[in-house]
Amino acid sequence: MINLRRQLPYKPTERMNVVSYPIRDIVMEAKHEEAKGKKMIYLNIGDPPQYGFKPFNVIAERVKSALDESWKGYAPSEGDEQLRRTVAKIERGSPDDVFIVAGLTEGIDFFFHSFIGFGEKVLLPNPVYPLYLSKAKQFEGDSIFYRHDAEGQIDLVNLERKIEGAKAMVIINPNNPLGAVYTEKNLTEVVKLCADSDVPIFYDGSYDQLIFEGSQVDFRKIARNKVPFIYGSSLSKDFSYPGARIGWVAFHGDRWAEVKNAFFLLCNQRLSVNWEYQKAAAAALVDPSYPAYVADMKMKLMERRNTFVKMARTLQLSFPVPNGAFYAFMKIETPKWKKDLEFVRAALKEGVVFVPGSGFGRQEDGVYFRSTFLPESEIIEEAFEKIRRLL
Amino acid sequence: MINLRRQLPYKPTERMNVVSYPIRDIVMEAKHEEAKGKKMIYLNIGDPPQYGFKPFNVIAERVKSALDESWKGYAPSEGDEQLRRTVAKIERGSPDDVFIVAGLTEGIDFFFHSFIGFGEKVLLPNPVYPLYLSKAKQFEGDSIFYRHDAEGQIDLVNLERKIEGAKAMVIINPNNPLGAVYTEKNLTEVVKLCADSDVPIFYDGSYDQLIFEGSQVDFRKIARNKVPFIYGSSLSKDFSYPGARIGWVAFHGDRWAEVKNAFFLLCNQRLSVNWEYQKAAAAALVDPSYPAYVADMKMKLMERRNTFVKMARTLQLSFPVPNGAFYAFMKIETPKWKKDLEFVRAALKEGVVFVPGSGFGRQEDGVYFRSTFLPESEIIEEAFEKIRRLL
Amino acid sequence: MINLRRQLPYKPTERMNVVSYPIRDIVMEAKHEEAKGKKMIYLNIGDPPQYGFKPFNVIAERVKSALDESWKGYAPSEGDEQLRRTVAKIERGSPDDVFIVAGLTEGIDFFFHSFIGFGEKVLLPNPVYPLYLSKAKQFEGDSIFYRHDAEGQIDLVNLERKIEGAKAMVIINPNNPLGAVYTEKNLTEVVKLCADSDVPIFYDGSYDQLIFEGSQVDFRKIARNKVPFIYGSSLSKDFSYPGARIGWVAFHGDRWAEVKNAFFLLCNQRLSVNWEYQKAAAAALVDPSYPAYVADMKMKLMERRNTFVKMARTLQLSFPVPNGAFYAFMKIETPKWKKDLEFVRAALKEGVVFVPGSGFGRQEDGVYFRSTFLPESEIIEEAFEKIRRLL
Amino acid sequence: MINLRRQLPYKPTERMNVVSYPIRDIVMEAKHEEAKGKKMIYLNIGDPPQYGFKPFNVIAERVKSALDESWKGYAPSEGDEQLRRTVAKIERGSPDDVFIVAGLTEGIDFFFHSFIGFGEKVLLPNPVYPLYLSKAKQFEGDSIFYRHDAEGQIDLVNLERKIEGAKAMVIINPNNPLGAVYTEKNLTEVVKLCADSDVPIFYDGSYDQLIFEGSQVDFRKIARNKVPFIYGSSLSKDFSYPGARIGWVAFHGDRWAEVKNAFFLLCNQRLSVNWEYQKAAAAALVDPSYPAYVADMKMKLMERRNTFVKMARTLQLSFPVPNGAFYAFMKIETPKWKKDLEFVRAALKEGVVFVPGSGFGRQEDGVYFRSTFLPESEIIEEAFEKIRRLL
Repeated sequence: MINLRRQLPYKPTERMNVVSYPIRDIVMEAKHEEAKGKKMIYLNIGDPPQYGFKPFNVIAERVKSALDESWKGYAPSEGDEQLRRTVAKIERGSPDDVFIVAGLTEGIDFFFHSFIGFGEKVLLPNPVYPLYLSKAKQFEGDSIFYRHDAEGQIDLVNLERKIEGAKAMVIINPNNPLGAVYTEKNLTEVVKLCADSDVPIFYDGSYDQLIFEGSQVDFRKIARNKVPFIYGSSLSKDFSYPGARIGWVAFHGDRWAEVKNAFFLLCNQRLSVNWEYQKAAAAALVDPSYPAYVADMKMKLMERRNTFVKMARTLQLSFPVPNGAFYAFMKIETPKWKKDLEFVRAALKEGVVFVPGSGFGRQEDGVYFRSTFLPESEIIEEAFEKIRRLL
Repeated sequence: MINLRRQLPYKPTERMNVVSYPIRDIVMEAKHEEAKGKKMIYLNIGDPPQYGFKPFNVIAERVKSALDESWKGYAPSEGDEQLRRTVAKIERGSPDDVFIVAGLTEGIDFFFHSFIGFGEKVLLPNPVYPLYLSKAKQFEGDSIFYRHDAEGQIDLVNLERKIEGAKAMVIINPNNPLGAVYTEKNLTEVVKLCADSDVPIFYDGSYDQLIFEGSQVDFRKIARNKVPFIYGSSLSKDFSYPGARIGWVAFHGDRWAEVKNAFFLLCNQRLSVNWEYQKAAAAALVDPSYPAYVADMKMKLMERRNTFVKMARTLQLSFPVPNGAFYAFMKIETPKWKKDLEFVRAALKEGVVFVPGSGFGRQEDGVYFRSTFLPESEIIEEAFEKIRRLL
Repeated sequence: MINLRRQLPYKPTERMNVVSYPIRDIVMEAKHEEAKGKKMIYLNIGDPPQYGFKPFNVIAERVKSALDESWKGYAPSEGDEQLRRTVAKIERGSPDDVFIVAGLTEGIDFFFHSFIGFGEKVLLPNPVYPLYLSKAKQFEGDSIFYRHDAEGQIDLVNLERKIEGAKAMVIINPNNPLGAVYTEKNLTEVVKLCADSDVPIFYDGSYDQLIFEGSQVDFRKIARNKVPFIYGSSLSKDFSYPGARIGWVAFHGDRWAEVKNAFFLLCNQRLSVNWEYQKAAAAALVDPSYPAYVADMKMKLMERRNTFVKMARTLQLSFPVPNGAFYAFMKIETPKWKKDLEFVRAALKEGVVFVPGSGFGRQEDGVYFRSTFLPESEIIEEAFEKIRRLL
Repeated sequence: MINLRRQLPYKPTERMNVVSYPIRDIVMEAKHEEAKGKKMIYLNIGDPPQYGFKPFNVIAERVKSALDESWKGYAPSEGDEQLRRTVAKIERGSPDDVFIVAGLTEGIDFFFHSFIGFGEKVLLPNPVYPLYLSKAKQFEGDSIFYRHDAEGQIDLVNLERKIEGAKAMVIINPNNPLGAVYTEKNLTEVVKLCADSDVPIFYDGSYDQLIFEGSQVDFRKIARNKVPFIYGSSLSKDFSYPGARIGWVAFHGDRWAEVKNAFFLLCNQRLSVNWEYQKAAAAALVDPSYPAYVADMKMKLMERRNTFVKMARTLQLSFPVPNGAFYAFMKIETPKWKKDLEFVRAALKEGVVFVPGSGFGRQEDGVYFRSTFLPESEIIEEAFEKIRRLL
């Protein structure tokens, strides 16, 4: 008997439908071009070491010394005690409120897994870092999007219309992909709306040390005792060490006991995060040389941003001027381009790699793309020259 | 207006119902006893460094040198190229068939996420490592259990009755928690059944270097060209480095193209595994000193197993004699104990920590618990003295 | 031992979160008012017999005679053979393409159950009959909404931007709640877009005999051989017999074989639809007196619609003039009302029951409510007088 | 451009995997044989009118008179008030505790939808009516099976081992497919176990008037004030009118308020059950001629059962003698048949239609099939002659 079924390739599950990662998908096409000999400028990914930014050196040094100590078994699932205490001090909370995760990526997964139930509304920024979209779908939440104004601040009228009945609101500040930094006034109003509607906040502070102009706002002070929130960050961006795979989340407010227990179970299930790197994170977070390190990084980033903005203004592009992180989210103001993917592919043929705006949520009013300004000024200038004729 | 809802703690999602991790849950109770001053002997967790087993030293050395090189950004999502090539050589496959994961724990998650659809049957051993139970539930598969005979071999009659219509079969060899090592004859028959019913295999080889008596069987040779399979392993057990969080899976057979693409998307979504440790894994897997290292480890384990078996035979316990890994799965043959949890709690009061058998799947025919034999012989003897009066 | 858990009421499942039915929810409040002695005018529900419309009398007559025959066992799950043949003739298809359902409500459930997979996009009109929203959520589809222009026609530019990648498009014509009837030109363009993007259509023709002005368009002719579609209707509206619980769906095109098999399994699972009423439907669908019946019904409805429109124009309301069904979807053009529910509750206090617009999908640009114009003209006039001072 | 995707048939959703209905699937094969001219004896389906049992005539009479009244609109979603009051009197509860459903089939769907959450344990009898299996899968519950002893009573030792942590227990009495009627003693013990473990009961009393020997036990009296339960029944079997599609469920105990609200929402979502038949049910349930009707039906059934048992005993079959309903669940005691489906297909070739035992849950210890004894004695005898040589 011939068994036809055997001839067929296996199919992935239906739930894989919702998993995609547009930022890296476009890279595949770029690598293909590069393999054919074309020189490519990568403005698509937020990976500082690729562009010459050195990770905070305390981390590698402390990993080395930890390797001579005894941190080779499973670490406590919820995180190394010393690191939890260190984070707790920064957060002005208790170590019991802190969980160590394999990059904030894992913390976001745990947040949706444990807190966003089937059919529950989660308020996301639009545009938004793509992982939030795909986690909301994976865990069957109902994504509701709040808008930004032209300066990149949260549009409070729009938020007010949508906040009712939300299970939680996600804030990314500085925002990826906008590069916008929310003002104290804006955040205070947002916190007030959340408090009025009893909506807790997941605050993604991955880039919270990388703010250029104006004094830095501490969200914890704004929100404390007003609304329950979770504050997350990592070594990836503020310390330029994405490969470390170390992040953390801290729960604030007294209503999280059962959700913290759920986080604990999820931590248990994947057993452990690398222990030596946790020791290194504990050292890095309190090292006195960090302020100088981050000041230098910000200075370089500002210079590159300035070049980027100057160049972009020569073309038919509009965008909020980024005041943090290392991204700009650009709207194409010429009618030539009807689909973002078509523009991104055309740019790729010219040797410049961007991410199409649709990867960050549906953009109903126009055609968008995201660019980093991580590379040195000359490369940014070169990139703009290459795409000049497209715009 | 008083808002009563605000007084209430947040509830985790309904789907958290299925997440539990019995091996570590019992530890909490033990730590509580220890905090009160009682000396505890931990026979509950498979963490070799805790019991004096040194990780293979090549790993730490190579991490140190890698820290002076440039592996600090995001590694390729699917894994470092050198490590994938190294694994591919061992697997006699192509690097494209290999994915690097943050411990095989993550590989198991990706396997269920991408391949076991809603309501699809997955054949699991009974007893089984608990993570498989909870992943089958999380991803809504239909767990079907195959039994073992008294020697710990797979019961082929039982398997034959259940295999029809299965989407995949999971084999753990050496088996956790049984400590059983399947013979070449047994595995050959299993592969034949799978081939007849067209059921692919997920092979968990986490302990595949830790086999005591008899020559080691290479499952890949038995299964190749007969049935499609996925082979997984890690640094955690064979190299005594669970804290490294490095594992890998290799796809075998030509029907996996779309499932490999799904793995790729899941890798992309979590961005990267720590890069320096991947470099270290690539070095460790081909280092010429590994055979001596693993021979020494096996000698120690055999000695401890022998003590364990000798002691256990003085009590009313029955179990297949473990020929691999570092666990035994014991049936209590005295009618005194009706529930495994009651026995485990009584043992805990005596100062010995086991895992209740029910954590490894329902045991309809009696009362079971799992013990490791990782500690030194004197400690094993001491543990048995403490629980003697309970049995 | 006191078992606290026993004191607690049982909780419904998390998935109940997504089930609500706003059209009837508001009735509860109205009944409460009525119980206190207030006279209420119900403009909230599309139930013609409540407003004096007589069901097509052939149905009751044929049920009576069928009761003297032998139709008391389970009918064939997929439907009575005679009724399937009758529907097939109307649809110009084969009886194998027809399924009889307990109201089109059940047909919509089966459509989402069998065809809209996890995370798959389904294009819905906005505004939309609420059952579609809740079925999309229950079956974890991704609802995407297409807009209407000021005349109530489908906005083709908006549709074109959203159609890519949709698994299916739902068309309700005449539309509930808009009362709009799509023109042949509009539908032809929609079919063209669907054909270009290979998107099949679920066509809800519940009100397809109730069109007032202009010649009636047969969607089947427009779509046949251009795009696969499913045409559904029922006895509820066209025959004024909602209590009969008889509906049908017909598959068109040659790509539905496996989906039809899925429908068959779902029919099997709920065993049967009432058999005597199926016999009656078979008679009613071909009875020569139906044209006169429906003409009379349309005349009455038109008269009431005219009164309704005349009255509504005296207030600050805007809406497409309904050309079919028996609903209008009204936008409140005075800034007094910020939330539809507040207006509907205020109207209820005045003795008039409407449905808030938000039940038909989010209305970002204003405040809406739905009204039927089923009651006699004097009652419609009375209702408008009662709410005059609110607007 | 050739669009290959267009050539492909549409695929049903992955969740359709779990929908099957073995009782009717086998009919398709039988019809195929019949179409070829073979005479078939159908012992597969519990449809009394097919075998000459007349429905209780009050129902049809009352439907006729109701057709001359005004019950043609949507009935109240939760059920006609008069019918709810009538059922409430029988149940000795309040009308608010009663919901009218389109056959108990729909009541079972609503029960799982509203009460059995993701990953929650539901205790089902083994063997079990197949709809329970497929609803548990559809709603992602974890089915746990309790066994019966050789007389068909619930095995209390087995139940005790499995009851811990169950969300609910399903009891079908008389049991379909066993035909067993649980004794008062057995049910009292079951209720005690449920009360001790705080597990509520869903009681399926579809056949509760059809008990042959011994006085009839009222489960409500046994369970009242001891454990919360839901009692369901219908017109299908006790009144021989499956085509009516009228059933009801009644909640008992004071912890159901939120679950009743969930039932209400599910009723709302499907709008209404046929109203005239609800009026007829209200009349039938209190009609004084019913006792005589059901006594006659039971006498006929007992005679046919006696013939069935006498014939079955001449063959190598074992089964609990049915004391209720109209089914027997038979174990084949000859080693000739290894798979139930093979036997059922062989019987079908001989002209007799059974249902394979595996459709009622996995039968680990042997080969089973279900037969009804609804036909007249001569036909039962003829059927056994036809299959004699197979056993």
